[in-house]
Parts: sequence; C-alpha cells; structure tokens
Amino acid sequence: MARKQQQQQPGTVHTQPGEHPRVPQGLASMAQQRRVQLSTQRPTSTVCVLGTELSLDICGSAPKDAVAFHVQGTPGVKLYVVHETHSVKLPSLVGRWPLAAGAEVLLAMDTISKDVGDEKVRVSYFGESGGVPIGRAMLYLTCVEVSLDADTSRSGAVSRTLLDKASWTWGPDGHGAILLVNCDRDEPRARAPGSRTPDSLDTAIRSYADLKDMSQLVLRTRGPRTIFTGHRLVLHTDYSNAHRVGVFYSGNSVALEDYKHVLGGLKLAYTIKPSRHQDESIFYVEGLAFPDVDFSGLVAFHVTLLESPEKGLLETPIFTDTVVFRVAPWIMTPNTLTPLEVFVCSVKNNEGFVAAVRAMAENAKCPLTVCPPLENRQDRWIQDEVEFGYIQAPHKTFPVVFDSPRDGGLMDFPIKSILGPDFGYVARQAPEGASGLDSFGNLEVSPPVSVQGKEYPLGRILIGSSFPRFGGRRMAKAVKDFLFAQQVQAPVELFSDWLHVGHIDEFLTFVPAPDRKAFRLLLASPSACYQLLKEKQEEGFGEAAMFEGLQKASKPTISEILANEELRKFNAYVQSCINWNRDILKRCLGLAEQDIIDLPQLFHGKVDSGAEAFFPDMVNMLVLGKHLGIPKPFGPVVGGQCCLEGKVRALLEPLGLTCTFIDDFYSYHVLLGEVHCGTNVRRKPFSFKWWHMVP
Amino acid sequence: MARKQQQQQPGTVHTQPGEHPRVPQGLASMAQQRRVQLSTQRPTSTVCVLGTELSLDICGSAPKDAVAFHVQGTPGVKLYVVHETHSVKLPSLVGRWPLAAGAEVLLAMDTISKDVGDEKVRVSYFGESGGVPIGRAMLYLTCVEVSLDADTSRSGAVSRTLLDKASWTWGPDGHGAILLVNCDRDEPRARAPGSRTPDSLDTAIRSYADLKDMSQLVLRTRGPRTIFTGHRLVLHTDYSNAHRVGVFYSGNSVALEDYKHVLGGLKLAYTIKPSRHQDESIFYVEGLAFPDVDFSGLVAFHVTLLESPEKGLLETPIFTDTVVFRVAPWIMTPNTLTPLEVFVCSVKNNEGFVAAVRAMAENAKCPLTVCPPLENRQDRWIQDEVEFGYIQAPHKTFPVVFDSPRDGGLMDFPIKSILGPDFGYVARQAPEGASGLDSFGNLEVSPPVSVQGKEYPLGRILIGSSFPRFGGRRMAKAVKDFLFAQQVQAPVELFSDWLHVGHIDEFLTFVPAPDRKAFRLLLASPSACYQLLKEKQEEGFGEAAMFEGLQKASKPTISEILANEELRKFNAYVQSCINWNRDILKRCLGLAEQDIIDLPQLFHGKVDSGAEAFFPDMVNMLVLGKHLGIPKPFGPVVGGQCCLEGKVRALLEPLGLTCTFIDDFYSYHVLLGEVHCGTNVRRKPFSFKWWHMVP
Repeated sequence: MARKQQQQQPGTVHTQPGEHPRVPQGLASMAQQRRVQLSTQRPTSTVCVLGTELSLDICGSAPKDAVAFHVQGTPGVKLYVVHETHSVKLPSLVGRWPLAAGAEVLLAMDTISKDVGDEKVRVSYFGESGGVPIGRAMLYLTCVEVSLDADTSRSGAVSRTLLDKASWTWGPDGHGAILLVNCDRDEPRARAPGSRTPDSLDTAIRSYADLKDMSQLVLRTRGPRTIFTGHRLVLHTDYSNAHRVGVFYSGNSVALEDYKHVLGGLKLAYTIKPSRHQDESIFYVEGLAFPDVDFSGLVAFHVTLLESPEKGLLETPIFTDTVVFRVAPWIMTPNTLTPLEVFVCSVKNNEGFVAAVRAMAENAKCPLTVCPPLENRQDRWIQDEVEFGYIQAPHKTFPVVFDSPRDGGLMDFPIKSILGPDFGYVARQAPEGASGLDSFGNLEVSPPVSVQGKEYPLGRILIGSSFPRFGGRRMAKAVKDFLFAQQVQAPVELFSDWLHVGHIDEFLTFVPAPDRKAFRLLLASPSACYQLLKEKQEEGFGEAAMFEGLQKASKPTISEILANEELRKFNAYVQSCINWNRDILKRCLGLAEQDIIDLPQLFHGKVDSGAEAFFPDMVNMLVLGKHLGIPKPFGPVVGGQCCLEGKVRALLEPLGLTCTFIDDFYSYHVLLGEVHCGTNVRRKPFSFKWWHMVP
Repeated sequence: MARKQQQQQPGTVHTQPGEHPRVPQGLASMAQQRRVQLSTQRPTSTVCVLGTELSLDICGSAPKDAVAFHVQGTPGVKLYVVHETHSVKLPSLVGRWPLAAGAEVLLAMDTISKDVGDEKVRVSYFGESGGVPIGRAMLYLTCVEVSLDADTSRSGAVSRTLLDKASWTWGPDGHGAILLVNCDRDEPRARAPGSRTPDSLDTAIRSYADLKDMSQLVLRTRGPRTIFTGHRLVLHTDYSNAHRVGVFYSGNSVALEDYKHVLGGLKLAYTIKPSRHQDESIFYVEGLAFPDVDFSGLVAFHVTLLESPEKGLLETPIFTDTVVFRVAPWIMTPNTLTPLEVFVCSVKNNEGFVAAVRAMAENAKCPLTVCPPLENRQDRWIQDEVEFGYIQAPHKTFPVVFDSPRDGGLMDFPIKSILGPDFGYVARQAPEGASGLDSFGNLEVSPPVSVQGKEYPLGRILIGSSFPRFGGRRMAKAVKDFLFAQQVQAPVELFSDWLHVGHIDEFLTFVPAPDRKAFRLLLASPSACYQLLKEKQEEGFGEAAMFEGLQKASKPTISEILANEELRKFNAYVQSCINWNRDILKRCLGLAEQDIIDLPQLFHGKVDSGAEAFFPDMVNMLVLGKHLGIPKPFGPVVGGQCCLEGKVRALLEPLGLTCTFIDDFYSYHVLLGEVHCGTNVRRKPFSFKWWHMVP
C-alpha cells in the first residue's frame, strides 16, 4: 500500500476541466468522500468524520415522480449542491433543485458532536406540480474525529498538520514521517554470545530508552463515546511490509510491562478501544529493516473506522486515515567530518603502531578504542571488518556499524562489542561467498559534492569493482544492493580489481582543505614518484637507497629503481588503472584537476596476481581532522630527510594539515595493508539532514 | 550498472561555478576524458577515441627546472590550454604558458586516422631563462571510432544520435532504447507438452522471425585496422542483469546457424574481432525478464577498448561506451479498445451460451476462438485463467498472455495453445498458495484517465484486495509486485474480499461512451435495484415475479423481495462495500458522479461466506466495441418486458450501446460466474506509445 499511496496525488485541490468540482476551500483539501444512501421510508443515521465529506445519493432515494428537491440542514452541517459543474453552498437563493441524473449534495461538518445524531439533514422531493413534498428523507448525523498522526512535519514531535500524511516527499520543503531501524541494543544485560541481538529482534520493551528510538503514531478520537460501541476502530498495516515494522501500545499506562507488541510480523490489525477519558492513543513504531533492493523504505499505517448496523455483523469500512513513514537510510561519514572515536587492534608485535595511533589520536583530541587480542583473534584489519555510519530521524540520531560479509578473526567484534545502547548494528551476508572486494577498505564515501548542478550534500559512496574488467572479483550483490537502496549517497563504482588486495583505499583518500570544495582527493601516483626520483637523481642523489634502517629488506637505490624497466612498465600499467579511476572520479564527483593531489607511490606485482605497494602506501592514511597518520614510506634519504616524506609534506602542509609518518612496515605493510586498513573511525554525523536532499 | 548509469547526469554540458570548465562546444558534450602521461625521455603513443578528450599530464612530465611550456599539434588535433578556469583554444596569441599546479592541456580529434600515429602533439618545456627548451615530450596519436549504438531515438531503427545513450528518459521528448522480452515462440515445431517454451528459454536462433523480436545493438569501429591488434574490444554486461538478457552475433554472416549466443546468463564478456571489411558489427539483444520488484527494467551494455603495450599483458581499459535499454512493460487493454479476438470455453451443456457469444462476436465483427473440452478440461472460467495484454518496442509489438497462478482445468491452455509466433506468454506463481483473488476476473484496467493533472494515458490497473479489511484473502505478492513494477498503468487496490468469489468484475465494468471521458464506469447497485422495484410496486406490479421461465428456481415477487428485511439489510451492507470502492474509484480515476452509471443489482449471502449475485450479475458483461453481452437477469416482467433489462437499456442505449442479454443462468450464474467470467478478449494495443508517458 505504500506504493499505492505514492502513486496517488498529494497536495492541494486542483480542479481539472471536466473534473468533479470540489467543495470550496476551508474544508480539508483532498477530503475523503463517502457515498451515503438515503431513504424516504425510514430515517438514516451515519457518522461524518471531521475533515471528510459525505456525498448524498439524492437520486437513489427519490420517489418515482420527483422532479425537484430541496435540502436543509441544522447549523452544524455545511451543505453544497453540485449543479452543472458548480457547487453552491446552502442555503442559497435557489430553493429547489432539478433532480437531474448526477444531481449531488455534498456535506461536511466542522464541529464534533456532543451527542449521537445531534445534527440532521432533510431532503424534500417535489413532483411536477410543486407544492407539497411527495417524499422526505431524513439523515441524522454525528460528527467524530478520527485521525492518525505522526511527525510528518519532521519537527521531532507529533503535531497536527494539513500536510498530506499519506505521501512522503524529499527536500527542504518535503514532508513525511521517519522511522528508525531499532538496530541498537538498549539493554546491555545479556552479554553471553548469541543472546546479544539488536532490539529489533525482540517484541518486548525492556527500557524507556528503547521507546525513545521509536517514532510515535498518535490516534486521536473525539466524539460521543457511545459512537465507538456501534463502530470499530482498527489500526492496521499492509501484509507486504508487516515484517518490517513493530508497533507497541500500553493503553493509558506508562509502566514498561504494559507495552505490548500489537502490530507487525504476523499481526496485521489491532482493534483499538478508545479510552473514555483520553482523546489520544499513543503507539510506538520501530523499523526492523533498512531500505533494500525489494524495499523502498516506505511503510504505511492505517486506522479504519468500521460501521456495523448490527453489532459484530456486516461490518463495512467507512473511513480510513493513512500515515506513511520512511525508514531512515544508513549514512556513511567522509574523512572531512569530525572524528569521535578511533579504533585499532592490539595484536602480536604491533605495540609501536598502537602507540603511534594513540599519540596521534591524543593530538587530535579523539578517544581511542583498542580492540584486544581476545576480541580480534589476531585480525588487525579493522577497516575491512566494519564501516561506521549513522541513522537519523528528527527525534533521534545514533551511530550504526555496518558489518561486512568478510568475517575474519574480528567477525564477532561488532556485535559483541560495538552493538549497545544507542549504537546500532547492520550486516549483510554474501551467500555466493565473500571476495576480497567485500572488505570495507573497498567502501569509502566522498565529502559533499555538486556535479553539473546535481547536489550530493552527503557525498557519494565509492566502491571498488572489477568493472570495466570482466569476470573478476566484485562486491557481494547483497552489499551493493544495500548501498544503492539507501539512496542518499548515490554510489559510484570504481575499478579496483587490478590490485592484489583490491581495495579502493589502496589508491585514494580524501583530506580536508581550507579552500575550493573544502577537500582534496589524494591519488597514489607512480608517475609523480618517477618524476620525484628522477629529479633527485638529477640532483646527484642517485645512490640514495630506500628502506634504510629496515632489517631484512633489500635496499634499492634511486638509480636502480629508475633503471628497472620491468618496474617502470608495471607502474605505467598501474598509472593507467588509476587514471581510469581519476577520470570517473572527476566526472562523478565534479572535480577539477586542482581538486586532486598526486602522492608519489610505486607499486609492483604481476598482472595475474595484481598490484601491491612497493613501499608503504602513503595514500592509505588515517585522517583525524587536520591530523594525518601516513604510512612511513622509508624512501631515499636526501639531505637528511626522506624525499618521499618531504614531497608529501610539501603537498599537504600548505593545506594546514599535520603529517605524522607512522612506521607500519613489518606490522602491516608486509601483510599487504597500511595505517588506514589497520584503523577505523567513528565520525560526527553531518549537520545536513538527509531528508532535506532530493536523491 | 544500470543503476549507476541512472544516477549519472545525462544531457548537455552545464558548467557550475567552481567546476572544471569544459572545452567549448563542437566537441561531443559530456565527453569522456582520459588522463595521459607524457615523458621527455621517450615518445608516447596512444589512441584517441572519436568524441572523447585526452587530458595531458603536463606537470607530471615536466623537467625539474621547467617554469613554462609550449604545446603544438598537427592539424588533426584540437588543443586547449586550461588556464585559471578558462580554456583557450590553440594556437592562440599566447605562446608559452606558466607551469602552475593543475596546468592542463586537453585535446580532441575529429577525423579518423588513416595510419597509426598519423597525428602528433609536442610539448616543449622552458626554464627561467627562456630561450631554448630544456625538455620535449612527444605524443603520437591515432584517432579511431568505437561506438555502441541502439535505437535510442525510438524510431524503429538504429541511428547515430547525440543523445546520451547511457541514460533512459520517459516522455514525448525522452530517449533510450527498448528491449522486448522474447516471450513468444516463433518456431511452432515442438508441440509436445513440456517442449513448448518461449523463445527466451533457449540460446538458439531458429528463425529470422525470432531475430525480428530482438533489438539491434550496433558496434561501429573505424580507424587503422592494425590498431585493433594492439588493443582488445570487449562487449560486456553487468553481473546483476546478465541473466535477464541474451545477445546473439553472427559475425558477417546472415546464415541462421551462424548466430551464436555470445552474452547473457553466465557469459559476461565477449571479445570482438572487428572485421577488416566492415565498420559495423550487429548484435541482436533479447530481454528474458519483465520489470519486477527487484528489477527496474534497465539493462546496460558496454563496449570497452583495452590497451596492452605488450600483447596480452597489462591490459588497461582506455574507453567504455555504454547503451542502456529498458525492457518494455506488459500492458493491459481496457474495454474501450477494439476487440480482436474473443475466447470462450466449450464445456458440457453450454452450447447455448457459446452460440450466443458467437452471434454477438459476429455482430461485433470479431473472430471467436472456442477452447475445446480437451484443452479446458471442463474449466469454463477463461477470464480467470489469463489476462491478454501486449508488449511494444518501436520495432515490434505483439500480444502477451499473462497466465494467473489460479491454475484450474485451463492451466495448460495458455502455454499450449496461446503461446506461439508473435504471441508471448508470461506467468507468475504464488508459492504461498493462490487464493480466489488471484483469478484475473479480479484484474481489470480502466480506460485512460487524468487525475488532478496527472495523466494516465494507458489507464490504471484495478485489483481487488481485502484492504481495508484485514487478514482476508489477497492477491499473491508475486502477481501484485509484477503489476506494480510495469509502472505504466499504476495499479489501484479496491476492496473485493466482501464477495464470496471476490473479484472486482462482480461489481464494476467500463463501457465506451461518445461524450465526457469517452467511457462510463458501471457499478452494480442494490439501492438502484430497490428503487426500481419499489417504483414498479408503486405502479402496481408488486406481484410480478423473478426467474419466470426458469425451472427449479424459486420465483419471488417484487413485493416479496421488498418485504424481505434480511435481504434488504444484506444489500445495504453490499451497497456500503460498493460505495467504499466508488469513493476510491472517483478519487483514483478522477471521476465525477456523471461518469458513473448504477446498474440495478441485488446480492445475497452471509457475512462470513461473502456476497453472491441474487440474480445474474449484469455488470459482469462482455464488451465488444458498442456491443454489450449482458447476463440475462430474469427480472420481473412488467408490461411484456423484463423491468431490469428495460432499466439497463434505458441507461446504456443513449450512449449508442447495443445490449444483448445472454442466458447464462444454469451454465454460469448458478456456478457463481457470469458472461464476463466465461469469456476473454484480446484487444488492439493503444495507439499511445508507453514510452511517451511519464509514470
């Protein structure tokens, strides 16, 4: 039904030529209309829901010889006769109306009844001769309010609006309520493995904090209470999305144990008994599933008023109110956002690395969390196991960790140690088997960009793929589908399968900058490295060697590197692969050459096994605000300084960035990863609200 | 990748403030750009694909002390220097350019090379002192054409256009190629059960007719043929949609047996060897799957040019061209379209009915197809088993039968007897078990409508559901998902679960009309029936009885019917259920009261078992142009005429319609169906092309 709602037209009344003319403004626009049969035999009684119209079947109850009618109502009833495509408010100067085919009387009420049937309408029918009516139909009316409301205006609280609750629109002027996937774990009691699951997996409310993650859905019912005994009010949702939501209700109680799971899963409908003492029934709604390939994210809830002339029998729906929610997408955070927490693994023989990251985090005033060996099981690649993001609704924001299908030694860490109160968890599996490209070092996000007039205020997700190569490794379909379905950070696919490990963080990163687009794209560049080395050779430093001070490493000189034709050819190949990505990045992120900085870097390897960094891969850095933790390249020392470090400083320090070169040679580099692969960062959410964009 | 393509910006170049300025018009807009490294050590050779730009890495090859450069090209090369956000076409008055960071030279070529490297560019570098260049970089260029084309302009034939082939847009000004699901069976040879399958299920071309259902994809390659030995050209598609398409190729041959299945399914890439003698390679593409909940309908094909400095080694992509197709949706045909073929089943004791339908079809000049007992196995409900629709591309249109998950005695009829040359077949199953609401008497489509400014030029699909009741029967998810995914006839859900059988054709139909919206909605109306009967009673015909001439039937009089309070209550309930639908139909189809005609009809039954027609359900009619085949109601005879027939004639004949009342009492009515349920119609496609609408 969410889809059906989408396809209906929202908004204000807009009468087309030849269309049925609506009653004048002042009544709710786009009001629901209900056909009511009359009878000259016996009085009819019915309910008019505030904000709706009744269409009286004037012709259907007309006596055989009637040719005209007259209609009168008590003061609480607004009456309109629709006559030749005009609608005339009654009382008008015209007393009697011809009883033509399609003659129609519309009525609306704007005051809630105090008693059942306290307003009425009388239709009198006249024959050719006029004079005395030849028949009369009486309609007794009770006006009630039945309204389902949510935070459609996105203010953080439920308020009544004239917005179309059954539609959901994007943008700064958009409207529509928002639901969070209740994927955190507010009650940290259960610590045993297996029992630690997100709140969305249970149907109990164990803490008020859990309630606060949910969106309120408020049912307002006003009118003579006895009306609700002859009628039934049902809250319901659609079969297709029922397994994606949970609804809790406590009646008038505020005691935790009184919150019952009333809707969602196999429960499609819940009969509400309006309280005698309260006009409002508050329901708490949680999302259970993120948008995905088969789920737009839209979920509709309805309240339906059923009329039963005889109790329990022959129930017919006479009014439905609908509220549509969108499940908030999972959002990634680029390097340019403030870091809130740095993660690193403590494994065998990486004390120096952990200490260096700790020192840098302290400089950046950012807390450090060290994942201990018991939890990482000697898996140091914390960048690859998880990606930190967040979800946001007007009433609540919390971080959510996305657990990759990689599942190395760290596989239990996210659910055991990160999932917790106001820290959510989501995962996707790769039933076809995970490849190296499923590690989240292969999943990054750009800072906000604008591309030929199209705004991406939350940036664009970047993933590595084998495209345009064929039959290579690729990211698992479930992960890719999930990322595309979030909509707000439209993914761009890059070509990373040329790398042995295959992650885009091996050749690109983003750093903050004070000018231009507020960031620079850094790309690994073999040609920049050759240019630098050649320059140093020309300056007479051809005999300066790499990897000085590193035991076990062979120590090629600048001249030896420059003379290595095989290495040069391979790096020309690497350069062309990176160029391919550079072209895509320029096009899809709207970048100019001035937005890109080439960091000197060499790769080696074979075509079939893929490229690996020849020396620590400097672009694979940790970015904490203006503090960069860069893999120490161990380049040739020229004039007392590593010429690679010198070049990188010269490129980045003018942007106000501080470069710290971290020795990761034996602890990460020789294992084919670097600083970025071995760390992870939770960052501050965007100040920009995702619902203000138009995907 | 289709999704990625969608998210990229189509259209013309539109430079934003702060964005990279594109080279001036005249070159292809939104050209692909490729970064090329230069060297002062040795000449560089590369290919420039017609319509793309090369971005020369001027700084990357600059000697250490260079501060300025000069660039010159042969006449076939267009050169631009990008300088402080302006681009200057060379030769210009400025001879030397400062070698600032981000200095960029763009080049394009617009004439295909005759020989490899027949054009060149020279970059000269100058030091502070000026004078003699301190370094020179040579670039040898070969311009080739590599272009993948399809019928993006929707003309019915492949033509080269400047339209963005990688995007697909709706509407009269839209562009983008269209693919048909090859769901017909062009070679009728195999008649044995089980071997009769649509063409989409094989990977062979057995007839030229089969080829004609497919869309052409044309690869154009021009340039020195030797270029294509140092390069590789690959046609490829994306993993995610490869199982939804098939591509056939015969090289230069036109012999059927030379058409090989080269792409689709597990085949993701195909290396093309451009012919020495032909510039064009023609591929034939078939769709295998209709749009559905997990498939937007968009499929992308790419051709990639790979460069390999050493043969077979170190291949890198240097150019990709992409064409996006949309799979044509399945389209339903409303009653207002010209009938082309009427279907009816011949079963035990329905000879009279078949004869009546035959006579009516003859009057309407429409061929009749009688499904014989051997094929229908005594299942007469041909309306419920299938729905006839069509698929359309600019090059081809053919009917497609949608086989319901109902699967009664007629279950094999569609695939055995309807599937054939240029008659397609599609089916959906209901793994959860089919319900009565899955029969296609519960699936109708309105004529074209306009709703508050939103056009539905192909009408809107109508399906019956239990909404807003809960826990009732509903249409199978797979069928509903399929219908929504077609996009062009946005479905509306009605409430039909109150009926015992549960089909919307039990209470509504559409007939053509000469005025207003060119149609009327007919609704079954108990209140209109009571009004008519009361009128006749008042006229003194209270003793006239129903069902005269029918053996075995009880024969209630008008007065007895009017006095039956239980029947009256039940019909008030039925009326309110129909009113609920009337309100939805008015809102979702933009109808006025004058667009609706109430046909007198009574129902009986119980609330839990649902409503059944009390006398033959007149709205359940067969509509063939202006000829209506209406279930004969056997109403009270008044003045020598059935008063129900008289009333219906009085309502419909003024619209120019001819009413034929068909006796279906014992052959269909007592089995809970009527004329519409027992017939089916294939109709002429809309003259409106679906791609001209905006869903």
